Amino acid sequence: MELENSRVTVVGLGLMGGSLSLDLLGRCKQLLGVDTDPRAIRFARRAGITTADLDSALDECDVLVLATPARETLRLIEQFRAHPPALELLMDLASTKRQIVEKMDTLPNGIAAIGGHPLCGKERSGFQEAEVGLFLGSIFILSPSARTTPSSLALAERIITEIGARPRHMDAAQHDRLLAAVSHLPYLLAVTLVGVAQDFGDTDPALWDLIASGFMGTSRLAASDLTMMVDILATNQDMTLAALSRAQARLGQLEGLVAAGDRQMIRDYLEPLQQRRASLDPHRELAHGA
Amino acid sequence: MELENSRVTVVGLGLMGGSLSLDLLGRCKQLLGVDTDPRAIRFARRAGITTADLDSALDECDVLVLATPARETLRLIEQFRAHPPALELLMDLASTKRQIVEKMDTLPNGIAAIGGHPLCGKERSGFQEAEVGLFLGSIFILSPSARTTPSSLALAERIITEIGARPRHMDAAQHDRLLAAVSHLPYLLAVTLVGVAQDFGDTDPALWDLIASGFMGTSRLAASDLTMMVDILATNQDMTLAALSRAQARLGQLEGLVAAGDRQMIRDYLEPLQQRRASLDPHRELAHGA
Repeated sequence: MELENSRVTVVGLGLMGGSLSLDLLGRCKQLLGVDTDPRAIRFARRAGITTADLDSALDECDVLVLATPARETLRLIEQFRAHPPALELLMDLASTKRQIVEKMDTLPNGIAAIGGHPLCGKERSGFQEAEVGLFLGSIFILSPSARTTPSSLALAERIITEIGARPRHMDAAQHDRLLAAVSHLPYLLAVTLVGVAQDFGDTDPALWDLIASGFMGTSRLAASDLTMMVDILATNQDMTLAALSRAQARLGQLEGLVAAGDRQMIRDYLEPLQQRRASLDPHRELAHGA
Repeated sequence: MELENSRVTVVGLGLMGGSLSLDLLGRCKQLLGVDTDPRAIRFARRAGITTADLDSALDECDVLVLATPARETLRLIEQFRAHPPALELLMDLASTKRQIVEKMDTLPNGIAAIGGHPLCGKERSGFQEAEVGLFLGSIFILSPSARTTPSSLALAERIITEIGARPRHMDAAQHDRLLAAVSHLPYLLAVTLVGVAQDFGDTDPALWDLIASGFMGTSRLAASDLTMMVDILATNQDMTLAALSRAQARLGQLEGLVAAGDRQMIRDYLEPLQQRRASLDPHRELAHGA
């Protein structure tokens, strides 16, 4: 099936679903947005998105994109097990993939389901933050399920290239392990930093006047949407704990080095990490990121 | 003494000293730059800064600004104890203040010395990164020493307002305690993140393809200048260790919460920190920051 002839429904009109809807508007036969939050619906309609309730949207839908937090995504897929809609493609956009793809595996054969995760975002959420071009240049991970068919995979890739992102195939386990290190851990380190500032600032509120862009950049992710983050931590528990454990080992090494006070040893530890960070492709700074 | 009639020498033509020199050029009677690195001298001359060696610069100098890393700053002040130059003001710009102000306390009465720290910067260093207006809108901390006189303080404040920064008085101990939490800890957390990515990436290099702006922002400080950072860790050892210890306690709390898996408890822990981060004045994002 071609995207141009497809009727697309996006469930969840937040930052991701909203941006996807804006990008796909006019590039498919029909686009419907679904949300339970009247505020999201109001914003979406103002931006030209036609909205509907889920049941009626499913009656006339070829491509269903679940742009909901992970727990709601799991609940919806569970619901489709009992009442399978007729779909050419079911794709989700949630930030963790194992539990969702495992749930997709249990769907009846008729639903061609695939896990998706666009590696972009902002710390602010909601349709009011949605924008055309949010996905431009981003990696968009596709994690196949037992229900993924060649034609559904082709349609998912077509959507991804249509919104300017780059599809990358990766199994759900590898996705969750690596994202724990490059996305979920950064969030927890940002939270840690704000927590320590709170601890010091409670004793001496002058701290809050001394905050500059280094602190702001390092702590930015702490402002991320809580429902999304709690779902991530709950659906990627083991890998998040593994990343946290490595972080504690690394912090312990730094503590030992600072306590020992040997400048050369400190420098020898820091230098390869400085070079690694400096070597990371600066164009990644420009793309929105997860 | 007025700034307009002062002969100013800036020692250290890196990011901070270079930017200060560019800002003060034409606003004082004479401006000389001092550096031992031929590359810095070449860049500075190309930008219109007259350079000299330290000894001859000291022969015709009213205001001496030490824009060197902390260890070199300590060495220079020690040198002035034996051979005190005739100065209206001696100010440094280093990122830690206790050891430097204590060393200033030991200077002969003739040198009116004060500790300074502009809360701005970038992760890239060197004169080639220097720019007019780097200090605009930044807090500029002044930590008086036993040698600070009212007229030297007034002259330091005049320089700070002239470059568009905001002077803030703070004793050296409070400065070092608070900066450990809002500046030195963010650096160590950024290093930790790059270290964990390295650990995971060594096992699975696909990790490096999944890096997006969240990781880039949280890890940015890991690319900071090593000589400066090693000096900071060495001259603020106790406070850095105190901040690291609080960070480990906070990470331990997060580990316990993720392991327990109680969504409501996780959310209750994260929510005040999310709100705190979201409440931080967004204009701080725009200023360059330490």
